[in-house]
Parts: sequence; structure tokens; C-alpha cells
Amino acid sequence: MSIAIIGGTGPEGSGLASRFARAGEKVVIGSRDAQRATEKAAKLCQLGSEGAHIPAPAIAGEENTSACQQAEIVILTVPFEAHAETLKRLKPVLRPGQIFVDATVPLAASVGGRATRTLGVWQGSAAEQTAELVPEGVAVVAAFHNTSAEVLQSDGPVDCDVIVCSDDKEAAKKVRALARKIPGVRALDGGKLENARIVEQITALLIGFNIRHKGHSGLRITGLPQQAYEL
Amino acid sequence: MSIAIIGGTGPEGSGLASRFARAGEKVVIGSRDAQRATEKAAKLCQLGSEGAHIPAPAIAGEENTSACQQAEIVILTVPFEAHAETLKRLKPVLRPGQIFVDATVPLAASVGGRATRTLGVWQGSAAEQTAELVPEGVAVVAAFHNTSAEVLQSDGPVDCDVIVCSDDKEAAKKVRALARKIPGVRALDGGKLENARIVEQITALLIGFNIRHKGHSGLRITGLPQQAYEL
Repeated sequence: MSIAIIGGTGPEGSGLASRFARAGEKVVIGSRDAQRATEKAAKLCQLGSEGAHIPAPAIAGEENTSACQQAEIVILTVPFEAHAETLKRLKPVLRPGQIFVDATVPLAASVGGRATRTLGVWQGSAAEQTAELVPEGVAVVAAFHNTSAEVLQSDGPVDCDVIVCSDDKEAAKKVRALARKIPGVRALDGGKLENARIVEQITALLIGFNIRHKGHSGLRITGLPQQAYEL
Repeated sequence: MSIAIIGGTGPEGSGLASRFARAGEKVVIGSRDAQRATEKAAKLCQLGSEGAHIPAPAIAGEENTSACQQAEIVILTVPFEAHAETLKRLKPVLRPGQIFVDATVPLAASVGGRATRTLGVWQGSAAEQTAELVPEGVAVVAAFHNTSAEVLQSDGPVDCDVIVCSDDKEAAKKVRALARKIPGVRALDGGKLENARIVEQITALLIGFNIRHKGHSGLRITGLPQQAYEL
């Protein structure tokens, strides 16, 4: 698989890029600024080769739209204030068959409010806004909202379940398989894309725990048969 | 402590009643129908004495308002369609200093919709609606939304964290201490009452998991220092 991470120079995007590269995936991080992307990619490869021995060319860096063009899976990890604008810029290069993963959380911090509160999005969630803004035939999947950027950027296992929501069952299955490449992660079928409303908001709650207790919180779903984590 | 569970004849209320009675608390379950409450209480005591050996008088049953009058902690576990009406009936008997715990989830099932979706509540959450409807001086705490009724009614440990939200820190602390009396439960400070918006909605997500995977799901928050579960 080839994976483009839009907003890949940020903490969540960088963390995901490192994790997928370590798992042997071909990763391109995107930025509005091509040079910034190239530099960040080089830095991630260097960090990776020191720590977990990633071969240097495993992560490339490009301007967002060119990163997007090559990828089978595009992952969006921009702050919510850049969400709609980024999608409008990507629209001309997105093509049917691509999987578009939205990890965006509409935190009130985007408009100067608190990171422990969310904004109401007219469509219901950032992911549903995405579904409205991508070309027809692009499969929108919501995932990776609740994984701590700090933990993703570390070397240790990620003590968090990834809840995957989509109206495209095949695309969701591929994203669950991808999520499971991150050590520690279990991936779960979160149902329809509309359920991203809840999964996105959980992040605001987790940020509150982090502030109150100086942690890097995540969540695990309990009480399900083992099969639920394997589908 | 004396605990009244309003809507205590339902599955969540019954489950909480059994758990608190087993922990040695004095529990009264309330119902609109006094006789129904008495019968259910007797049944719970009988079940309890067979399984976990609760002495017979540990759970009493009364009409909702009289159950409420005696209690230091009142726990509301009615379906959302009965939420506002129940609160209006309880208002004359609630008194300053009481702790009012709301476990209600505004599921769309209340108006004939799905249990995997929630209704928008004008105040933001069922718990915030409660804060508007109780007399001044009553401390409103949101908790016990995510604990499976089926698991609470069983004999085994409850594999779930209870996230407690309130604007009254002392009351929240007491409710966390109460929650920890249920074997397996860890209780966490979920911040202000407004965060009940998120905690309530998580239940709809968990119901979705239960339907898809035939489980009784709960959740655990990871990545926090041990102290977070002890405060």
C-alpha cells in the first residue's frame, strides 16, 4: 500500500507516518510547503533509523496535492481550522477508488476555544463534512482520532483501540488492517460514518484527562468477543 | 450512605441496586408504582441471597418520591422519555445537600429511533437538563452511563471505567468512591457537568458494538497515572 498523510508534519501525522513506515508501508507526508514536508520526512527517517532502524527512504515528503496523487490511502490529520480548505484543494487530485481516512477532531481550540470542547459541525462530524467535499467514488473512513500523538511518536506500543467508522465496508476493513500494524492497537468496526460524531468527541474528553492528570490517554473497548477485533 | 435509585425496577437501576447492596449500602429502589418497587426489591434480595448472600432487607422498594426523600444520594436511571417528567415530580421532595446522580442517556430510541443514535438536548446533555430541573443546592453528578446493565446484573466484575462529570467537586468525589464499590470498576474525574455530553453519547456507540458483535461492551481509559483512578 502507498499512504499519503496530509498534514503529516504535525504531531499526529508524523506519529502515524513513523508507525506505518516501521511496519513496512510506503509513506509520503504532505504539507502545504513541499520543502517543509521533505525536511520533516528526512528527520523522521533519521529518528527512525536511530531508534527502530527504518531504512532512510521509507518516508518521503511532498506538497499535499502531489502526495495525494500517488496514494492508495490518504490520511487527513490537519487541525480543524484547515479541514474544509484542505479538502477543497485536494478535490481535483482525488480519484474514485482511493480511501480517504479522516482523523480530524473539530476541537473548539480551532476558533480560539478549549481543546476539551468540540464545535458543532453542520454535517454532524468532521468526517461527514469530508464525505460532502470529496469526489464521488472516494471512500471516506473515520479513524485514528483517539490515538495520542505523543504515544504514536514514541517507540512503545500504543495502548488504544482504533474505532473505524465508514459507510464503505471494504474500505473500513482495509483501514482496520492498517491500524493493526501499529503495535498495541486493536481496531474495531465503529459502524456507519455518522458514528464519527461520537468518536471525534471522545478525543476532547481524553484531552481533558490528559490536562487533569498529565497523561497521554487512550481508550479500550471491553466486553466484546475476540472476533470483534479480528474482523 | 442511603441511596435511592429512581427507575430502579429497570435493568440498569436493578443492576446498580444489587451492586451497592452487596457493598453494604442501604438501597431503596423507586418506581412510579410502589407495589412494583416492593416486589422488585424483594426479588433482588432473593436473587442476591441465592448468589452473593445479601441479607434480605438490604434493598427496599418505594414510590419514587418517598424513595427520594430518605436518600443522601439519588440515582436517576429512567429512559430518556421519562427524564424531564420524573424530575418535575421529584423536584418538591429534593433538598439542598442531596447528591443527584444522572445516568440517563438521551437515546433516539426514546422517540422511536435507534438506540445507536442520540437526541440533541437543548441544554447539551440529559445531565445538564437535570441541573436545570432540580432545586438550587442539589449537586448534580453525571455517572454510570457506560456500565452495561447486563453485566451489572450478573455476579462477575464490571470491566468498565465510570467517568464522573460534575460542577460540584465534593459530590463528584463521593460518587467516584461509590462507583469503586462495584468490583472491577475504576472511577475517573470526567471534569465539568458539560462533559456529560460526550459520556452520554459513548453509550450509543457501545450499544452499536453490542449489536454488531453480540457483547456487553464497556470502556477503559488508558495512559493515565494510577493516581487518576484514586482521587
